[in-house]
Amino acid sequence: MWSLVTYARPGDDRTSVGVRLADGSVRSLRAFEWAHDVIDVVKDWSRLEPALKALDPRAGSVIADAVLRAPLRFPDKIVCAGANYADHLRELGLEPKPGPVFFFLKPPPSTVVGPGEAIRIPTADGARVDYEGELGVVIGKPGGSITREDAMGHVAGYTIVNDVSARGLLARPDPLVPAMGFDWISSKGRDTFCPTGPGITPSWLVQDPHALSLELSVNGEVRQSATTGGMTASIPELIAQVSALMSLAPGDVIATGTPAGVAMASGRYLRPGDEISIRIDGLGVLTNPVEGAS
Amino acid sequence: MWSLVTYARPGDDRTSVGVRLADGSVRSLRAFEWAHDVIDVVKDWSRLEPALKALDPRAGSVIADAVLRAPLRFPDKIVCAGANYADHLRELGLEPKPGPVFFFLKPPPSTVVGPGEAIRIPTADGARVDYEGELGVVIGKPGGSITREDAMGHVAGYTIVNDVSARGLLARPDPLVPAMGFDWISSKGRDTFCPTGPGITPSWLVQDPHALSLELSVNGEVRQSATTGGMTASIPELIAQVSALMSLAPGDVIATGTPAGVAMASGRYLRPGDEISIRIDGLGVLTNPVEGAS
Repeated sequence: MWSLVTYARPGDDRTSVGVRLADGSVRSLRAFEWAHDVIDVVKDWSRLEPALKALDPRAGSVIADAVLRAPLRFPDKIVCAGANYADHLRELGLEPKPGPVFFFLKPPPSTVVGPGEAIRIPTADGARVDYEGELGVVIGKPGGSITREDAMGHVAGYTIVNDVSARGLLARPDPLVPAMGFDWISSKGRDTFCPTGPGITPSWLVQDPHALSLELSVNGEVRQSATTGGMTASIPELIAQVSALMSLAPGDVIATGTPAGVAMASGRYLRPGDEISIRIDGLGVLTNPVEGAS
Repeated sequence: MWSLVTYARPGDDRTSVGVRLADGSVRSLRAFEWAHDVIDVVKDWSRLEPALKALDPRAGSVIADAVLRAPLRFPDKIVCAGANYADHLRELGLEPKPGPVFFFLKPPPSTVVGPGEAIRIPTADGARVDYEGELGVVIGKPGGSITREDAMGHVAGYTIVNDVSARGLLARPDPLVPAMGFDWISSKGRDTFCPTGPGITPSWLVQDPHALSLELSVNGEVRQSATTGGMTASIPELIAQVSALMSLAPGDVIATGTPAGVAMASGRYLRPGDEISIRIDGLGVLTNPVEGAS
């Protein structure tokens, strides 16, 4: 399986779009030389899809010194589903309830980092920074009020998302009104709190996005191990619900929620020096070091 | 006083950047012919500022048939301050409290509309859609953790924002956890819920952004009448607080909160067929019709 990646060369800030093969090698993509970010391709997904489907991913030359960047550095929207795996709820002592999914936004591009880029965490006592390995759905076809039946036709591809969360910064002490009692930006929207990548795997290469194994490890120790089949609301359901709230544009990312194994349950929060790796079947591995924010 | 506007000609989807004079006339801006949206200028604000300061706003030719669009159609972030006027709190029976401002995000570009474009409101019983006239601060110089002292140097200019809010869609019935009890996207983030414009008035033309009169009327009847001096957290304070949470980029908009007079206090919510006009000293008037969402 291959994915589209945004890459640079050492010492050169210009970026190109290439192909990343399953062995991790990056190859150039001559037909897309005009693109500087995978979002340039995703923005025109419907028109380019036939060419992408016909693509020989091994045709380009190997870029041995490619440095991967976030595949989509300037998405319009990053929409995250809260509490979308039953096992994650249960580890927190909660039970799933029927009803609409809770969504929140991460502000781009300040939250977005790519493979290998540092997650900078507040080091103040009580910030309690956590990881959340998630399947990210990348929209390729625009739409509002998309039906469940049509939803999968709006997906360009898939990526890995780490929904980094400062648990201790969510509840606000002494709020003015209950509606202002929880600060999702402060908890989830800080700079570097949305690692993504390594690339965007086109939807037609992923046979069943609800049957992918997902594994997150911290310093090599597995903390989350699940399949995407554990989602409470499926991908078509999420697309339908999000697009009923707001029209989606190509390049928008929906993070589909995280399974059990978070630090909020174990108490083992992130510390500077940690390294987080998330592997999802067919999408590769997204690895990020953790640093203290200045 | 003049502002930078994004405009089109009837029957032509291409947009240009022009100048809007105090009399409402729009003139071309030859030196900025390369720009198609005011954000193209704002993205390079620091470099272009000397040329803009030297500009003769009357030099271009009058575009008699100019149709204004939202000045910034693709900002990265629209950050809104909640409850930032004491008189607005008091009309709701609340008292201001010391402490950090509560911020929420409106997703661009789906929320953004320009002058004359319709606000589409859910017509279901209980949506209770409200207006909120606000001063919008447009960032021109990027930065994170900006100090109060440096903050005003990061402002490119000012615009008018209507923070449209479906009051009845904020509280979620029977939430899974208290943190998911309030849905700011559903209430504030719907398509067309962020009218902006008519243009961006450069910061150096606004002598004191904390001494501007703001007036909002519905169908010609004044509902909000205040000065921006009523803000609890000042503009430098807001910039410092937002940028401590997330780095700001040129084109980002901070909506500074609304004064008293909202429909939530009077019970007179918006209905299809209404027309809302917001006037702020020196920034012009932003008028939008209200339609029922399909």
